[in-house]
Amino acid sequence: MGRGARTAAETLRSAPPEQRTAAIEMMARRIREQAGEILHENARDVAVATAHIDRLMLDEARVEAMAQGVELVAGLPDPVGIEMARWARPNGLDIARVRTPIGVIGMIYESRPNVTADAAAISLRSGNAIILRPGSDALRSSLAIHRALSQGLDDAGLPAEAVQIVPTADRSAVGALLSGLGGTIDLIIPRGGKALVERVGNEARVPVLGHLEGVCHTYVHASADPDMAVEIVRNAKLRRVSICGATETLLIDEAVAPVLLPLIADAMEGCEMRGDEASRAILPMTPASESDWHAEYLAPILAVRAVEGVDEAIRHIATYGTGHTEAIVAEDPAAAERFLVKVDSAIVMWNASTQFADGGEFGFGAEIGIATGKLHARGPIGPEQLTSFKYVVRGSGQTRP
Amino acid sequence: MGRGARTAAETLRSAPPEQRTAAIEMMARRIREQAGEILHENARDVAVATAHIDRLMLDEARVEAMAQGVELVAGLPDPVGIEMARWARPNGLDIARVRTPIGVIGMIYESRPNVTADAAAISLRSGNAIILRPGSDALRSSLAIHRALSQGLDDAGLPAEAVQIVPTADRSAVGALLSGLGGTIDLIIPRGGKALVERVGNEARVPVLGHLEGVCHTYVHASADPDMAVEIVRNAKLRRVSICGATETLLIDEAVAPVLLPLIADAMEGCEMRGDEASRAILPMTPASESDWHAEYLAPILAVRAVEGVDEAIRHIATYGTGHTEAIVAEDPAAAERFLVKVDSAIVMWNASTQFADGGEFGFGAEIGIATGKLHARGPIGPEQLTSFKYVVRGSGQTRP
Repeated sequence: MGRGARTAAETLRSAPPEQRTAAIEMMARRIREQAGEILHENARDVAVATAHIDRLMLDEARVEAMAQGVELVAGLPDPVGIEMARWARPNGLDIARVRTPIGVIGMIYESRPNVTADAAAISLRSGNAIILRPGSDALRSSLAIHRALSQGLDDAGLPAEAVQIVPTADRSAVGALLSGLGGTIDLIIPRGGKALVERVGNEARVPVLGHLEGVCHTYVHASADPDMAVEIVRNAKLRRVSICGATETLLIDEAVAPVLLPLIADAMEGCEMRGDEASRAILPMTPASESDWHAEYLAPILAVRAVEGVDEAIRHIATYGTGHTEAIVAEDPAAAERFLVKVDSAIVMWNASTQFADGGEFGFGAEIGIATGKLHARGPIGPEQLTSFKYVVRGSGQTRP
Repeated sequence: MGRGARTAAETLRSAPPEQRTAAIEMMARRIREQAGEILHENARDVAVATAHIDRLMLDEARVEAMAQGVELVAGLPDPVGIEMARWARPNGLDIARVRTPIGVIGMIYESRPNVTADAAAISLRSGNAIILRPGSDALRSSLAIHRALSQGLDDAGLPAEAVQIVPTADRSAVGALLSGLGGTIDLIIPRGGKALVERVGNEARVPVLGHLEGVCHTYVHASADPDMAVEIVRNAKLRRVSICGATETLLIDEAVAPVLLPLIADAMEGCEMRGDEASRAILPMTPASESDWHAEYLAPILAVRAVEGVDEAIRHIATYGTGHTEAIVAEDPAAAERFLVKVDSAIVMWNASTQFADGGEFGFGAEIGIATGKLHARGPIGPEQLTSFKYVVRGSGQTRP
């Protein structure tokens, strides 16, 4: 698989953008055409699934949404070959920084079946070959989707090895991918829970564009507009509790907690709140323990902590945050700027919901995850983030003195 | 050391650029002031050294050059806090991509003593803390240089932990750095030979901005201007044979080899040439073996291979190259563009010497290596390449529908 992907990557590197666009469009068409087969295989996955049934289950509307998601990627600008910068040196050398594909991506994920289609489309848009390793619970669905993707590639005259899938649930395949398949994989993108993240950290022998947990914080400063604070906290926690940008911990200034906490609690119907001692003195709540500050609940549970001010909020986030997304609600611009500068997360927000942590919402068109590391790309991973670059130097016979 | 560096990184993150500039300037001053002590310790290193004496040995001129190199970095634009992009979303969210320091860098190197000063200055310019691990042969010199650097930090009111040095030649320290020192190191930069590169590949548990070998190629196309080809090959190989951008293999089109190879050989005084069968039929040379195509000689030796044309040259480079720097000499623009697009190296050049593969020559002001991987930064690693970024999102109470 690695060798095939490497060869396909060489083809993709110099394939015209229009051919890759056509392939992605044909992928969408083939997904629609084979919706029946995909739903049939998905039903077999669902029949033996023991958890996350809603996440796993497809219906006609979801298959159509998957096809539309792929079409959206077909319409995105092609990043390959774009000059990011160009300058001339005093000796006449002309230097351009040009976007290039990364090469071969290995993606290991435990997610909705549509990630199979999204990852293939975004990878192809960036000129990369990809080897997909879906979770075992969605394997039959993903194999069926992959058959449609392969036909789309073939329709456009691109090699089938541009998008491959590991056809087995055998977990040793994950180890093989993490080893780099004999130097053929350039980048691993993991997307999954704590166990996968730890395995990747221990075993990966190639660069990783990581998706750590999202223990996101919303901090309500003393200067916050009360109505805005209530709306943002409610949305940040409850709009969808299962996404990585959902707020997990509320930090709130002691000065305003007696007034604001009860208002927030009123708006959080169906949400369990777990508080520190100071906040429980204001509002009856389950006591929060140390593990709550570390928790990525992905559930209607909110940890609550009263803080002295912006510096204590920043310290809490530095201690317990995972570098994903944090927001401050404040009218005081000095407090907000201090928070935006000092908090070292991929995304920092002022007066907005952490649920905006999403490539689509950022205007990237699509994403296959949020990177929480500090190298290469940080934040939403879209087509542009799956590129590298090279320097193209044009001379007229210059030699170095 | 890791905890100290982490704390220092937090201070550096929000220190004003002027303070970091002042610290770098004071570092240069302290290096000059303590030149005697640095030379004294360097003499002790030299006294027990068994190899690379010239590379290791300092004199007053080299110490002055080291101080000037540091001053150069002080004068470079500060990358931290720069807005790389900013845009508004239809919902009014204002999104900025802002440069940030990476955090804590671990640098493991086997190089000239001046790298100790360069790496500290470039790291500080980018707002990062750094832990230096010099080669054991330069340890006393590096410790003396480090004392000057520490005083420079102190002069400017910055924590000494912003630049630390591993004070022992014990090789287990390398393993500790590669493990990430308990999660305190964000990035490892290795700069050394094959043994170090392999150890990093096996043991690193944190991201690596790698400096693989530089097996650089110069390819002379049939359309090349003969005089230019001779000049470029000579410069690319012989200007300095010990730098990573020196050409190690000459590829030459069969069509012009009978005329050009003798001209090139005439210009390569003092250089051993090792050829494949076809080129030895033109010019008497030592036979080249498979290992020659893989060799980073860093010496006055040039491997020579005759090729059918640009595609065979591209294939040779894909097989034996290390992704560093490759050049084509050609008057035919179609051949040149094919080479520039198809060769996937950090730097590809047309009608110029591979010895220009250098951050200073690119206009970056300074560099601490050339990255040959495809993630994060590729090519010369200067202050800008040692930054990350974050998204700063400013709203007015937006919640996600």
